Amino acid sequence: MADRPVSLPTTLPEYAGAARELLSDGAWAYYAGGAGDELTLRDNVAAWARWALRPRVLVDVSTVDAGVTVLGKRWAHPVAAAPMAFQVGAHPDGEVGLARACEAVASTYALSTSASVSVPELAAAVPGVRRWFQLYVRGGVDGARRQIEEAVAHGYAAVLLTVDLPVLGTRDRELRHPWDPDPGLTTIAASGAPLAALSWRDLETLVAACPVPLLAKGVLDTRDARQAVEAGCAGVVVSNHGGRQLDRVLPTALALPEVVAEVGSEVDVLVDGGVRRGVDIVTALALGARAVLVGRPLLWGLAVGGAAGAQRVLELLVGEVETALALLGVPRAVDLTPDAVTPAPWR
Amino acid sequence: MADRPVSLPTTLPEYAGAARELLSDGAWAYYAGGAGDELTLRDNVAAWARWALRPRVLVDVSTVDAGVTVLGKRWAHPVAAAPMAFQVGAHPDGEVGLARACEAVASTYALSTSASVSVPELAAAVPGVRRWFQLYVRGGVDGARRQIEEAVAHGYAAVLLTVDLPVLGTRDRELRHPWDPDPGLTTIAASGAPLAALSWRDLETLVAACPVPLLAKGVLDTRDARQAVEAGCAGVVVSNHGGRQLDRVLPTALALPEVVAEVGSEVDVLVDGGVRRGVDIVTALALGARAVLVGRPLLWGLAVGGAAGAQRVLELLVGEVETALALLGVPRAVDLTPDAVTPAPWR
Amino acid sequence: MADRPVSLPTTLPEYAGAARELLSDGAWAYYAGGAGDELTLRDNVAAWARWALRPRVLVDVSTVDAGVTVLGKRWAHPVAAAPMAFQVGAHPDGEVGLARACEAVASTYALSTSASVSVPELAAAVPGVRRWFQLYVRGGVDGARRQIEEAVAHGYAAVLLTVDLPVLGTRDRELRHPWDPDPGLTTIAASGAPLAALSWRDLETLVAACPVPLLAKGVLDTRDARQAVEAGCAGVVVSNHGGRQLDRVLPTALALPEVVAEVGSEVDVLVDGGVRRGVDIVTALALGARAVLVGRPLLWGLAVGGAAGAQRVLELLVGEVETALALLGVPRAVDLTPDAVTPAPWR
Amino acid sequence: MADRPVSLPTTLPEYAGAARELLSDGAWAYYAGGAGDELTLRDNVAAWARWALRPRVLVDVSTVDAGVTVLGKRWAHPVAAAPMAFQVGAHPDGEVGLARACEAVASTYALSTSASVSVPELAAAVPGVRRWFQLYVRGGVDGARRQIEEAVAHGYAAVLLTVDLPVLGTRDRELRHPWDPDPGLTTIAASGAPLAALSWRDLETLVAACPVPLLAKGVLDTRDARQAVEAGCAGVVVSNHGGRQLDRVLPTALALPEVVAEVGSEVDVLVDGGVRRGVDIVTALALGARAVLVGRPLLWGLAVGGAAGAQRVLELLVGEVETALALLGVPRAVDLTPDAVTPAPWR
Repeated sequence: MADRPVSLPTTLPEYAGAARELLSDGAWAYYAGGAGDELTLRDNVAAWARWALRPRVLVDVSTVDAGVTVLGKRWAHPVAAAPMAFQVGAHPDGEVGLARACEAVASTYALSTSASVSVPELAAAVPGVRRWFQLYVRGGVDGARRQIEEAVAHGYAAVLLTVDLPVLGTRDRELRHPWDPDPGLTTIAASGAPLAALSWRDLETLVAACPVPLLAKGVLDTRDARQAVEAGCAGVVVSNHGGRQLDRVLPTALALPEVVAEVGSEVDVLVDGGVRRGVDIVTALALGARAVLVGRPLLWGLAVGGAAGAQRVLELLVGEVETALALLGVPRAVDLTPDAVTPAPWR
Repeated sequence: MADRPVSLPTTLPEYAGAARELLSDGAWAYYAGGAGDELTLRDNVAAWARWALRPRVLVDVSTVDAGVTVLGKRWAHPVAAAPMAFQVGAHPDGEVGLARACEAVASTYALSTSASVSVPELAAAVPGVRRWFQLYVRGGVDGARRQIEEAVAHGYAAVLLTVDLPVLGTRDRELRHPWDPDPGLTTIAASGAPLAALSWRDLETLVAACPVPLLAKGVLDTRDARQAVEAGCAGVVVSNHGGRQLDRVLPTALALPEVVAEVGSEVDVLVDGGVRRGVDIVTALALGARAVLVGRPLLWGLAVGGAAGAQRVLELLVGEVETALALLGVPRAVDLTPDAVTPAPWR
Repeated sequence: MADRPVSLPTTLPEYAGAARELLSDGAWAYYAGGAGDELTLRDNVAAWARWALRPRVLVDVSTVDAGVTVLGKRWAHPVAAAPMAFQVGAHPDGEVGLARACEAVASTYALSTSASVSVPELAAAVPGVRRWFQLYVRGGVDGARRQIEEAVAHGYAAVLLTVDLPVLGTRDRELRHPWDPDPGLTTIAASGAPLAALSWRDLETLVAACPVPLLAKGVLDTRDARQAVEAGCAGVVVSNHGGRQLDRVLPTALALPEVVAEVGSEVDVLVDGGVRRGVDIVTALALGARAVLVGRPLLWGLAVGGAAGAQRVLELLVGEVETALALLGVPRAVDLTPDAVTPAPWR
Repeated sequence: MADRPVSLPTTLPEYAGAARELLSDGAWAYYAGGAGDELTLRDNVAAWARWALRPRVLVDVSTVDAGVTVLGKRWAHPVAAAPMAFQVGAHPDGEVGLARACEAVASTYALSTSASVSVPELAAAVPGVRRWFQLYVRGGVDGARRQIEEAVAHGYAAVLLTVDLPVLGTRDRELRHPWDPDPGLTTIAASGAPLAALSWRDLETLVAACPVPLLAKGVLDTRDARQAVEAGCAGVVVSNHGGRQLDRVLPTALALPEVVAEVGSEVDVLVDGGVRRGVDIVTALALGARAVLVGRPLLWGLAVGGAAGAQRVLELLVGEVETALALLGVPRAVDLTPDAVTPAPWR
């Protein structure tokens, strides 16, 4: 790993380039890559811009409030860290560093099942961060129940159950650049192959066994969103796994309004995928998302500057959200409606 | 600053390239850059071509008249200079030079609040130019009233009140290339932070206090256009601040016909953003604009050849307007209607 | 001018590249360039591909007949040479060479008013070619009548009256690369400025004075096509002057079906602009054109190999038309209908 | 021919690049090229991505079955080898090698009339492969009947009658890079010019004379599909000959659903053209295809690694199909419906 830059980039797009310089080909392939021809990877980013913003003027925006309500809790802003595997591969600060960055900016940290650190370790290291636990059901439903119990016991406030990884996607970049994200790793909370047999019945079992809100992460279809609500989920995360699972699926910015129309009045809908800018985030909120999970940009911040780099990226994103709210003439994020966006088929 | 070329380019597109060569990275970033990913910056230019022109033939065009009527006054042509800050940063001739160029071709010069020269100074230096004053409300409404009074006292014939800058947009290029547009500047007419609290009530107050026509500059939404009319504005300028404030908004060429449909029969609608060619200007007029404010192209002319360069750019633009009118078979600009354009979704 | 290649290219796209190598910057700018940003120049080519072909199979195509009927005459194929100015600038063979190439393949040659050779000279040099005369009204209607008389006296079978050049378009490339297409030229049939006052009444006068069919060349609008028919024209040429006059107008492949719908059952509709391939030509016929005027490709053939090069390009085009008819399952060109094409919005 | 790589690429896209390195310019032009400007060649690939996949979650996909039923027979998966001419030009293993690769993965091999090996020779060399015979009617219908008899006698289970080659398409790349695919070849089963007179009546004759199922290969139009069914065909192959015959026609991914709507409930519809990925194949099945013929990718596999290379490509394709089925939440290929796809106009 090359030396870290002394000063951090001042604009968001610079972080990806700087991270690319610092990471090995294998690490870059692992973190930046997607499935197949990576159409969905690119579509995710491009699709936010398929919505144009409709600003209003001469609204008093001397006070801007980016705060939102998620699962009944007040958040200072809608930006949370998406669960991502093996963060020590990006920087020695790893999961603990990114969680500390989240704490510093009142963000939410979602720990991956495939983390370089255990559920209790992260909680002990960063006790003040609002934290969620992302669950891969690998060893069976009973194992998953024990994982949930452990997470809840250590203060994780919600569980994101990943439903879009029954098998691993086709990831050419990883095949071309084999890389071990965490040599000598012994702390992965669960291992084994993905549970391809995971079913709606299993989801119901896990919801029943989960004392905190459980959200189904990886929903793109309205019928699945409906079924998740029927199964007792507290919400769904519209996601295609960052374009890493099945190529050619809908970008999340286009699936989001469909899912919101189906279940948005009953449960919380979150979204991830391709979020690179504050305007992406206000677009997501305008389309009905309660909050947004940001992935790779935070990893690039971590890679470039450890916890401080990730914090800077979070600050830039939140700052852009506030600027966008002011310029939209919608000073309170909770007042965003679809009225603030319009399709932009020309892009 | 490099030496100026002895002879001026003969075609419009050459001016941007020549200016890029002459200006420092910082100056170029400041003048050429936009907000965020600069999608709106690019969309503004591209969107004019999303309209195709529909020429008619065998019309007598031996006499072409590009003249228009703006705020009840006859203009020889529809091309005016958009307000732009700190024009001395582009060339020592600065605001005075561009105003002289406007005077030479019977154009209109809009002085920015953030000018390198004061309101009285510009009036004294170029007394013969038709001049407007662009107003940023920074120090409060009372200060703005005094600015209006001063402008009117010095012969500025209209006020363009900027309504799309409650806070400054996210401008990555400027962050990457910090630059002081006017070192040692002491002449800015108003300073301080943007007035994020500016409201429709304030606008009404300023309209009432303004003895000359006041136009709201920075309107993209029909509801805001309607409200501006209700507040007493003499017109609106459809603008997204040259793509420098909120990225992802509608390009002005697409917002213009909506605003014209809403208020075009009651007040004068003007437009700026992405205008690079005579065909852009006739398209704007066909869509219902009374006149067009041109920004960066004039700045490139100024950078390349001072007042003479700016004048040449204005002459080229006006000449292209006249050629386009002849080739459209619409010899009088005031006879342009939406009939002369049709959507061009294939571009 | 560089040496000509000994052997001629075997495929159509190679001719443009080869001509670019042989011609001076000025000549290339003059022949290849278009108006403004050259959007229409490019649109013309691209728009043919906005139509997809719908082939039928198991039709007996052992005999293919590319023949069409134009102005009541049987043509062996639908490919004619568009009028183009100053062809000696491309190759010493010039107009005479291209006319001989047309004669060799039973094509039609349209002599430009701005030719390097006079109307009688061309007729004397290539008496066997079917020839038309393209008329610019420059010196007034009386002068135009005399030009028509002269052309008819020398066996020109039709007159193409150009209606889309009341003034010259904005051609940046020519301004950047000034070039005299025909130094010392003394043979131009007519000179002087374009007649910007030319009107529908003048057209009626010229039709009445013209003993051979007169077609209005440069029509894009259905209302103009209708008026041309009312004025007595034997046909119209859907054309935007090869993208050289007003940029941003409709590409001819999109204007053609509108004009055919308006007047195609009453007069002959021809088309030019962007035709580079046999599939372009069958598309035009399917959309209702009686024949197609080909411009620049023939000039590239002329530049590359003189009369022989132009002939080779014509042969390649006609050959492609025949192949396309066979593969479409429409062995006779006259049987082509809109059924053979469908919009291709994905291109 | 350059040395073959010791190890085979691990991802599908690498094979084309590797084959390009190994093949001569002439061979590459012959195999990779298409007709005209190669728009259809490119459209074929791009059009599969004009369909987005709609995955469902929490379906038990612990057992995935890619099996399909074609012509009443159970196939282990939907991937068959498209007929391609002169495969020894790509690798000495040639047709026999590719047939062995098909046998190894329970795929189907379609022998071309223009093969480097005779119908009996291929059958003798690879008796265990499920094999079809592709028929060009060149020497007349009687000769075609004898070819069918021979093929059936040697265990070919179906006949693909090519209907889209009455004449050869315009293939510029081949003209620019002349190449003899099989010097000294003496084994071509049939020779002579294409039979441009082939008609629906001939097809009926051949169907009546064919004791095994006969499919019309090269249908894009629903009316032709209907007529093929009336003539007694057991199925149709939606194909544009890999973009090698008439440029500008519909890509097969867009023609497929139209043909399926017309005849899919009566006969088996297969498709080829532009298939590069497992997601292409599941898209084709979702749109109603019974199976998919893959062409160039197998040739690149053959070029890169002989029979072993082709086998690896087949394995990668089948593996991707299985992964895609699991991630779609449709564990059995036969259960795919149009519900799994949706138009993706943004790509």
